[in-house]
Amino acid sequence: MSTTERSPGGALAVPSRIRRSLDQVARRSPARFAILVFTALILVVTVLLILPVSSADGTATDLPDALFTAVSVICVTGLTTVDMATHWSTFGDTVVYVGVQVGGIGVLTLASILGMVVTRRLGLRSRLMAASDTNPLRAHAGPVPEVQAVRLSDVRGLLRTVALSALAIEGAIGLLLFPRLVADGIPVRDAFFDAFYYSAMAFTNTGFTPNAQGLDAFAHDYAALTLIMIAVILGSVGFPVIYVVTRNLRHPRRWSLHTKLTLTTSAILLVLGAVVYLALEYDNPRTFGHDDAGATVFQSFFLSAMSRSGGFSTIDIAHLHDSSLLVTDMLMFIGGGSASTAGGIKVTTLAVLFLAAVAEARGRRSMEAFGRRIPSDVLRLAVSVALWGATIVAVGTIVVQQITRESLSHVLFEVISAFATCGLSTGLTGHLPDAAKYVLAVTMWMGRVGTVTLAVALAQSQRRQLFTRPEERPIVG
Amino acid sequence: MSTTERSPGGALAVPSRIRRSLDQVARRSPARFAILVFTALILVVTVLLILPVSSADGTATDLPDALFTAVSVICVTGLTTVDMATHWSTFGDTVVYVGVQVGGIGVLTLASILGMVVTRRLGLRSRLMAASDTNPLRAHAGPVPEVQAVRLSDVRGLLRTVALSALAIEGAIGLLLFPRLVADGIPVRDAFFDAFYYSAMAFTNTGFTPNAQGLDAFAHDYAALTLIMIAVILGSVGFPVIYVVTRNLRHPRRWSLHTKLTLTTSAILLVLGAVVYLALEYDNPRTFGHDDAGATVFQSFFLSAMSRSGGFSTIDIAHLHDSSLLVTDMLMFIGGGSASTAGGIKVTTLAVLFLAAVAEARGRRSMEAFGRRIPSDVLRLAVSVALWGATIVAVGTIVVQQITRESLSHVLFEVISAFATCGLSTGLTGHLPDAAKYVLAVTMWMGRVGTVTLAVALAQSQRRQLFTRPEERPIVG
Ligand SMILES: [K+]
Ligand SMILES: [K+]
Repeated sequence: MSTTERSPGGALAVPSRIRRSLDQVARRSPARFAILVFTALILVVTVLLILPVSSADGTATDLPDALFTAVSVICVTGLTTVDMATHWSTFGDTVVYVGVQVGGIGVLTLASILGMVVTRRLGLRSRLMAASDTNPLRAHAGPVPEVQAVRLSDVRGLLRTVALSALAIEGAIGLLLFPRLVADGIPVRDAFFDAFYYSAMAFTNTGFTPNAQGLDAFAHDYAALTLIMIAVILGSVGFPVIYVVTRNLRHPRRWSLHTKLTLTTSAILLVLGAVVYLALEYDNPRTFGHDDAGATVFQSFFLSAMSRSGGFSTIDIAHLHDSSLLVTDMLMFIGGGSASTAGGIKVTTLAVLFLAAVAEARGRRSMEAFGRRIPSDVLRLAVSVALWGATIVAVGTIVVQQITRESLSHVLFEVISAFATCGLSTGLTGHLPDAAKYVLAVTMWMGRVGTVTLAVALAQSQRRQLFTRPEERPIVG
Repeated sequence: MSTTERSPGGALAVPSRIRRSLDQVARRSPARFAILVFTALILVVTVLLILPVSSADGTATDLPDALFTAVSVICVTGLTTVDMATHWSTFGDTVVYVGVQVGGIGVLTLASILGMVVTRRLGLRSRLMAASDTNPLRAHAGPVPEVQAVRLSDVRGLLRTVALSALAIEGAIGLLLFPRLVADGIPVRDAFFDAFYYSAMAFTNTGFTPNAQGLDAFAHDYAALTLIMIAVILGSVGFPVIYVVTRNLRHPRRWSLHTKLTLTTSAILLVLGAVVYLALEYDNPRTFGHDDAGATVFQSFFLSAMSRSGGFSTIDIAHLHDSSLLVTDMLMFIGGGSASTAGGIKVTTLAVLFLAAVAEARGRRSMEAFGRRIPSDVLRLAVSVALWGATIVAVGTIVVQQITRESLSHVLFEVISAFATCGLSTGLTGHLPDAAKYVLAVTMWMGRVGTVTLAVALAQSQRRQLFTRPEERPIVG
């Protein structure tokens, strides 16, 4: 096992007693550890946002709004019950900025660690690479309980690698974005702040906008929009993919199955989404039907990319046809890559479900992709994650519907946007009663923390069985 | 293999050349055979319904309406674009009655045969029983290609058994219903026709009503409503379950896994649906909120039972809250038992998906229920059927939405009602443009014929594989 990522102390050092007890929780149950950390972060941000110093007018923010914003920040959702551009002071903005970074990078790290547990091998480098055909670990499929525990030192090493990559990408995008914003007429000082704020909101797939007009300020600056799109897509493919691709840029054959599956499915969804939006909205003057052909195609791709978790929007979502809202619902629900800043059930989950259907249709005994066989227990995990998502969305929608009596189309949209931490909104979230705000906050929390930890909690519970039962086959379908 | 169900000729004999070529199609591809038979039946009924003699006012019925009704009749859906109580003549009513019987019993038979292929053993009795622990066939899980072909003589034998059981149940329910309808003030001659019409519409899970007021005529005759509910539930559990239960009435331990799984899941869904309806609608005066407690509970159970494919309704569906409509969407989508007159993805499909999640959560290597192990390829089939259903519903909803611009809530409801051949309606189907009628007709056809044949088409394609690929595990969730 690689030890290069472990460090004995450094900037992230904590007092040894606390470290030991955290280490113990992390070792025994990484899922519980993740839930603990995330919930604590949300509470800290809530308290900070309630403080009068956080709001622009110097008064204390209501608990429901502060809590909702804190959940939205830490879960990098981007839904909001207050006007993000005007409600907060510079201090409040800074809390949001730092919160998003911590939440986004935290999720990346946690998901990566949990991914390690799920794939049942530790050793950061060997797992993230997972590319070489000669890797002897790859042959192992069964449970390896003794390596399922995660040490805090692994967490720290991974956290550093992830944070450095994230900040490098955000810095590069921010630097490229800065001159564009200046060219779009934003004052230089604001543009500097906005460039890095936008860059962070894009890479972490959050989707808050710092300026009053939001993206409208550069709705026709295709260079700026393209930079934002690139940051969103980089954030949404997930850290394991970025790691493998950057280290094997010229050797796509060495990419892991996970990398190939994520990139292929993401690309298909991006193009498919854009084509369907184009077909449904080309004659809708209230969205992008009034633009010329090139602009309409670009906006279709932009919307398709943002639906999968980015949450930025150049149009008023409420003006989309109900059919396009439903398409967006589906794209949001699927979300981005595993161990990414995007939400949803993840593209590999969808891919595995489809590969199962393909295997069934072709009469193959096992799921296959890119010359590899996928073990059948991965399908069970995919089914579990999809059922978990569908259940949360169904219950959330029914409850919010019952509270607000708004149209199914809009309620479903907001609930899926919350579950998948996408942040696109028809505007309904802005005027929800407090009860519904709490329901959406719980939905975000379950969608973010729940989905990421569910997989590991399930995988961890692998047990030996001492007897086999007789087999019997029910009729399905 | 049992031969008792095979008969060399009899009432169902067809000229030997046609029989031979049908036999060949049935033998080679039962799925194609089913599609062929169903499509032919729909075309015959369409032509009959277009004839002026079929309509009450003696004029020819439009092609879209005749085709829609024919699909609705043969697929036992119960959705309608014309007023079923007044539009048709007695001849037209008879075409509908016979069509529903042929469609309902035909589906039962086909699904049972296809079920045989899916479970990969022939021999009607041994499969339907599938109860005795000493059955040596049970141990076989792998593909047995040589017994996957279905002989026409098997079809004929099964058809007779199914038809006799169906007519016996319908006759009994009709006889019990007759005095109730007379007591409710329907003239004796009408009551006799209506009793058997209702009985057929209930057992086949169709849901057409012959009288102008529909169920309102006996909305408070709980005996009549209970009889209808029993017929609907008997039809919806499926023939394999009826067969096993009637032959082992006193020995539930001998029931097959399929029987136990279907009955348990159906019971849970019935109660859960009723409880949720009660919680959501108890204060809605436009549905059953104005009734006393007992009536409200009864109506909740009635609606819960009918949502799963019966399609009868004592209330105006459009008056349900959007939240209740969504609950109904989910119940309809799940539908009834395999090889039943009900539609949807089937309760065992849902059960298998949940058992997979439970197995994953409990760390078991395989899915288990009632002391039996379920082979993992059944999960792949369940995933395929669920994805098929979700895809049809999504595409159908987007297209109908784009054509009509109606609310998502109502469009989704009608499309799922069509896919799952449930027949409940918010009233939207009654005033659809022709293009949308065709889309819904295709949805019904795909939901009915497609779902039943998909499973077998998939199971049939089982092939040997000469090599295994290296295993690799993507991250999901
Ligand atoms: K987001
Ligand atoms: K029906």
